[in-house]
Formats: sequence, C-alpha cells, structure tokens
Amino acid sequence: MTETPPGALPAGGKDVLAVEAQELRAVEAALRERFGRYGYREVMTPVLEFAAVIDRAQEGGLREAFRLFDDHGRVLVLRPDLTIPVSRLVATRMADHPGPVRAFYLARAFRPPPPGRPRASEERQAGVELVGADGPGADAEAVALLADSLAATGVEGLRIGVADVSLTGAVVDAVVSDPDLRAALRGALAARDLAGWRRLARAAGAGERGGLLERLPAVRGGAEVLDEIAALAPEAAPACERMARMLELVARHGAGDAVVIDLGVMRDWPYYSGIVFEAYAPGVGEPVAMGGRYDGLGARFGRARPAVGFAIVLDALHRALMTAGAEAAPPREGVVLVGGLDEDPGAAAAARRSGLTVVALPASDDARAEALAEADGWRFVARPAGDGYAVLDRVTGERRAGVARLEEALPSPS
Amino acid sequence: MTETPPGALPAGGKDVLAVEAQELRAVEAALRERFGRYGYREVMTPVLEFAAVIDRAQEGGLREAFRLFDDHGRVLVLRPDLTIPVSRLVATRMADHPGPVRAFYLARAFRPPPPGRPRASEERQAGVELVGADGPGADAEAVALLADSLAATGVEGLRIGVADVSLTGAVVDAVVSDPDLRAALRGALAARDLAGWRRLARAAGAGERGGLLERLPAVRGGAEVLDEIAALAPEAAPACERMARMLELVARHGAGDAVVIDLGVMRDWPYYSGIVFEAYAPGVGEPVAMGGRYDGLGARFGRARPAVGFAIVLDALHRALMTAGAEAAPPREGVVLVGGLDEDPGAAAAARRSGLTVVALPASDDARAEALAEADGWRFVARPAGDGYAVLDRVTGERRAGVARLEEALPSPS
Repeated sequence: MTETPPGALPAGGKDVLAVEAQELRAVEAALRERFGRYGYREVMTPVLEFAAVIDRAQEGGLREAFRLFDDHGRVLVLRPDLTIPVSRLVATRMADHPGPVRAFYLARAFRPPPPGRPRASEERQAGVELVGADGPGADAEAVALLADSLAATGVEGLRIGVADVSLTGAVVDAVVSDPDLRAALRGALAARDLAGWRRLARAAGAGERGGLLERLPAVRGGAEVLDEIAALAPEAAPACERMARMLELVARHGAGDAVVIDLGVMRDWPYYSGIVFEAYAPGVGEPVAMGGRYDGLGARFGRARPAVGFAIVLDALHRALMTAGAEAAPPREGVVLVGGLDEDPGAAAAARRSGLTVVALPASDDARAEALAEADGWRFVARPAGDGYAVLDRVTGERRAGVARLEEALPSPS
Repeated sequence: MTETPPGALPAGGKDVLAVEAQELRAVEAALRERFGRYGYREVMTPVLEFAAVIDRAQEGGLREAFRLFDDHGRVLVLRPDLTIPVSRLVATRMADHPGPVRAFYLARAFRPPPPGRPRASEERQAGVELVGADGPGADAEAVALLADSLAATGVEGLRIGVADVSLTGAVVDAVVSDPDLRAALRGALAARDLAGWRRLARAAGAGERGGLLERLPAVRGGAEVLDEIAALAPEAAPACERMARMLELVARHGAGDAVVIDLGVMRDWPYYSGIVFEAYAPGVGEPVAMGGRYDGLGARFGRARPAVGFAIVLDALHRALMTAGAEAAPPREGVVLVGGLDEDPGAAAAARRSGLTVVALPASDDARAEALAEADGWRFVARPAGDGYAVLDRVTGERRAGVARLEEALPSPS
C-alpha cells in the first residue's frame, strides 16, 4: 500500500486559490444581481439526499452519483445536479405558493468522473427554476435571463442554441411509425451519435420527409427553418409555432442576437419535455450553461406544475472569461503595516474602521514586508518612522515619510 | 420496506427557503467584508477528500465523518471541518508564500449527527486561518477579528471566552507528577467532565496548588486571574504573561470589552496547541464560533508553520440574530407586472435595465398578481391600462393610473 501524499485530492477534486476564488465570487455576484432583477430568490438544499428521493426524477434511477449509507442502511447520494433537489424543494416546501415560483441557487453538484477522464467531480453551478409558468413567455424569460446574466459577467460572443424535444419528437412520430425505430432515434440523439441518427433515419424512409428527418439534428438558423419543418411535417407545426413565438419574445427581451435554433442540442437528462438549450462561449469546448423545460418533474415530487430553468457551470464560464483575456488585477488598495500585529494594533484598527485594508505584520517580519505585498498584490507598505509612518506606494514607486495617520496617506476605499 | 416520502431529507439535513437564504447571505457578506479588511483572502477546497489525508491531522484518525469509496477502493470523506483542508491547502499549495498567509473560507463541513440527536449534518462555516505568524500579536488579531466580524453582522452582547491549552497544561504539569493522572485530567477537560476533573484534581494533592488545580476550569475574569495563577504555579508564568500580553493587544484593537478569560473553554479537536476560544451570543446555547492555535498542523502536511484561526457557525449566528428580534423585512421594491411574461417583455426588460426588479406574470395570471406579491413580498403590482399601466403600491395603498413607463412610476433602486 503506497502512502497518500499530503496534498493529494480525489479524482476530479480541486483547490481554488485566492485570485481564482475572487474571480469566481465576482461572477457569482453578477449572476445573483441579475437573477434578483427578474424576481428570482435564492434557496439552498443539502448536499446529501436520499437516493430514493432523487431517483424519483427519472425511470431507472440515476446513473452517476457518489453514494454512501446512513445509520439505517439507507442509500444517500451527493446531489448530482441542482434541478432535481430544487424541484423537490419547490414541490414539497412551496406547494401552497400561488406561483409562479422563481428560485435560484449557487451551489455544487457532484458526479464521479468517468475512470481515466479528467472531469471535475464537484461542479459549481448557478441556476434558476421558473415553476408554475407555461408557454413561450416562460421559455423566453429563461432564455433571455440566461443571455442577460451571462452578459452581466462580461463574457462576449455568446451563442445560445435552442431545440425542443417535443418538436423533434413530433417530426420523428410523423415520419417513423415503428416504435423501436423511434426509440432508437431518440437514443442516438441523446447520445449525440449523429452518424447513428443518420443511419437510422435513412432506414426510416426516403423522400422529402425522410430527408428532413435525416438532417434534423443539423438544422440551425433563425425562425425560417421552422417554416420549412412545418411545411414538410405539418404534425410538428404547433411545436414550430410555439418556438417561433418564443424567439419573438426573446427578441423583445433584447436578447435575440445571442439565440439561434440548433436542433442538435439534446440534453442527456430524460426529464426534459419541451425546449432545451445550451450556451457556448468562444474558446471553451463544453457548454457554459444548459437548461430546458421539464414539466413532469414536479409531479414526481407530488406537486404537478410546469417548469423551465437552466444551470450555468461556473468553472466553464470562468474559463471563458479567462480565455477572453481578463487582465491581471492591479495591486489592491491595501497596506502592509510592519509592527501592526504586535506593536501598533490600535493604528491598524483605526485605519480599518475608516475602511482601509490593513495587513498586519509583526515588527520582526520587517524584511519580508515587500515580499508579502508582492505575493498577495497589496499596493502599499508602511513602517513606523518617528511619530508616524514611512509609506511606499508600489504602483507609483513613491515613498512618503512623516505620514501621521495611515488613513490620511492612502486613497479612500472605493 | 416503506417508501421514502418525496420531501424526506437525511437526518440532520435541511432546506433553506428564500427569506432565510437572504439573511444568511447578508451575514456572509458582512463577514467577507470584514475578513477582507484584515487582508484575508478566500480559498476553496473540495468537499471530498482522501480520508488518509484528513486523518493526518490527528493521532488515531477522525472520529465522525461521512465516508465513501472511490473507484480504486480508497476511502473518501466529506470534509468534517475546514481547518484541516485549509491547512492542507496552505501547506501544500502555498508552501512558498513568504507569509504570513491569511486565508478565509465560506463553506460547509459535514458530520453525521449522533443517532437520535437533532444536530445539523451540514454546517455552514465562515472562518479564517492566519498561518506563519506566532505570538500574542497573531493570537490577538484572531480574537479581535472574530469580535469585529461578529459585530459587523449586527449580533450584540457577544462574549468571547479565551483559554490556553499550554497554560492549563503547565499548571497540570506543575502540580501533578503522575503521567497517567495528567492524561486523565486532560481527558476530563476535553470531555467537559468538570465533576471528573475535580475528583481527579483532589486526588492529585491538597494545599494551595491543589486548590488551584481543582478550580482551574472554573477560572473566569480579567488579567488579574493570571497573576494569581502565576503566583501559585510559577511554572505557568510564561503562559500567563503571553495571555496577558494578548489581552492587552486585543484591547488596543478595540475589542477588549467582549473578551474574558474562561479556562473552562476546551475545544475537542486535539490539534490545538495554544490559545483556544469560543464566542457565545445571548439566547443561543451552543457557541457561535470557536477557534485557537494549532502550531503542529502544518507540519503534518509537510510545511511546519505556526497557525491560529477560527470558524463561525453560520446557523448558530443566524439563530442569535433572529433571537435578538431582527425585524421582518419590509416589502421589497420590486414590481409584479401582469402580462410581462407573454405580452410585454420589452417593457419588463427596459425597466430591468434601469435597475428595477420586475417579476413578470402571464396575462392570464392577472387574478393571482396580488397573492404572488404578498407571498414573495414585492411592493408594487402593475397592470397594462390604456397606453400605460395602473400601479398599486402595497405599502401606501396608493393606486396610480396612466403611468407611461414602469421605471418612472417606481422609486429608483437604492
């Protein structure tokens, strides 16, 4: 048995140091502000849930989740997503709410990474659920809020691809009569096996309708592609009209530029029942956000209400922001105060009361004050000198002597 | 096998609804701001750690923790506290930092509740670690920052009791020569078995020194109690002087009023090596925060540095704030807009861009607009009327008609 090194983390685990933590929190704050502006309110659920409760969300139970046992031998899971727990919370704790319920969360989801694959086991997510509102207006709010909140974090060049499992299903049902072949087509799409889809679609039949089926997952564009589909498969016309209306409402939200129909979008959770969407940002291969409508989920927790929502993957969004070349942060307006820890805590306290950041050092650490300021990015270094302080500004290089009080020498906190 | 109800949560698990979530986030924001003012920077560690790594923190391994297995059969734990993971992070990822390292966290710790005892299994904690600074100055910063940051959340009547395991140990070693009896005394204190302590102390000997030993865990007061101890047990004089100096520095931080010597404080983690402290707030039985010095912890992760820190238990702090009678929040300055979801998203979007919170309803939900505003605490309800809107102010009862644009009718967001 080899010893586990002291810094070892389980597969997919990650420590976050100060610079990245601050960036992630800034992203969270921007999202929180934007969710709030649409009337969404935060809820929190426990990390540990009963497997039997989470498994209600889908036939056959969850595939990937960390599992353990409680004292009574019941199986617990670390929540593998937030949509299911928040749906549970809304259905069971807010059953009497007049609706619609608007809930958001900032939380972690947990999935064991596939063996040998470098994937995060703990995913920070920010998401919303709009429960008790149906139709294109509710779908449009979800899509527009996703575009608006991602834009609020500073990410540019965003593209949100929208599909609709009921639209795709209507085309399949219209063109394919064999139930086994229908199921195989849905399976191929869920697995993103586009070659498999094309092979199955060709087996389903020829002609214009067969051609439509074959190229369906490759359909991309604006509302005009919906007209083509409705013309060839009138059975799908209501779903096409609904999506056209949704796109129109998204445009009136001011979010139309980022949104495109992309019928290749197919989320791998079987609980989706209507629109599904994914957001991509330049330079990041995986989606930064995903969501859709799952009208059947509430009923599985005892309170049937339509619902639509999305989850933003914060690490992916953070990568997008970094790829876009976010600048290194300038030194922060804090002061490293030599002797502030053991000789002059009163001066440190007074400066903090005026809003300054004071990083106190023992007097004996004089020699490493600049190294600390450099390592953590503090702008000023102050040392006792005579009755006051000598202050170095690391940005301008200026050195001031005879500073009576720290809070006078430094810029006011913004 | 009985079916698990859809709303069931594992023992000690809890959902947090919107009002409480908002209060908890306000507490977190106040703590984060105050930690930052002392130069502490946030770090994040994964929930899942190797048991073999966390077990390094103490002889004999951890007692209570949720355990599971990874693909290779290695034991994982849900982190049972944050001090150990953050010490691991600082020792392994920041080994080259010039120091002192100031790190803070806002995170959950996980412990299985004892069978039949109603205790939270997931504890939200906010804490700091000051690594690489030794002596009374560093201890004083930790205690003063705890007092300052708790005060920033609005909690009043706070009391921080401070002890020192090295001081208590010096008295024990001075008065008791039998190693077994010494160990039994330490065990009684760790278990908070004060009757057991007194019985053991009486067995240790009579006289003034025996009396001091017997009443030691009941010693409370200001610096004067340290003089008494040093007079009776000169072997403990250096520890007494260190604590007196620490108290003097805390007073110069402006935090002296809340702090009292209480030698009955004894944290149950064996990694503490110097001062230990607990904060109590009126009306809450358990401590709202606890901390101390644990100079040996870094070495267990390969980088020996002195360290002191504390953890605030957010749920206990929140209870203290609620017990103190925090008022119900007034209606928030948001507007429920009938038709904003499906007929008028452009007006909703324009009002949001000006900073307003707009909660959009479908036109068909007109009848439940007031119920929704009541349920979620929104101040205004607006309906399309003519070319503009009719707006109800639920606080004043005023109804205004002919409002051209929402953002003109409502108070500017603060």
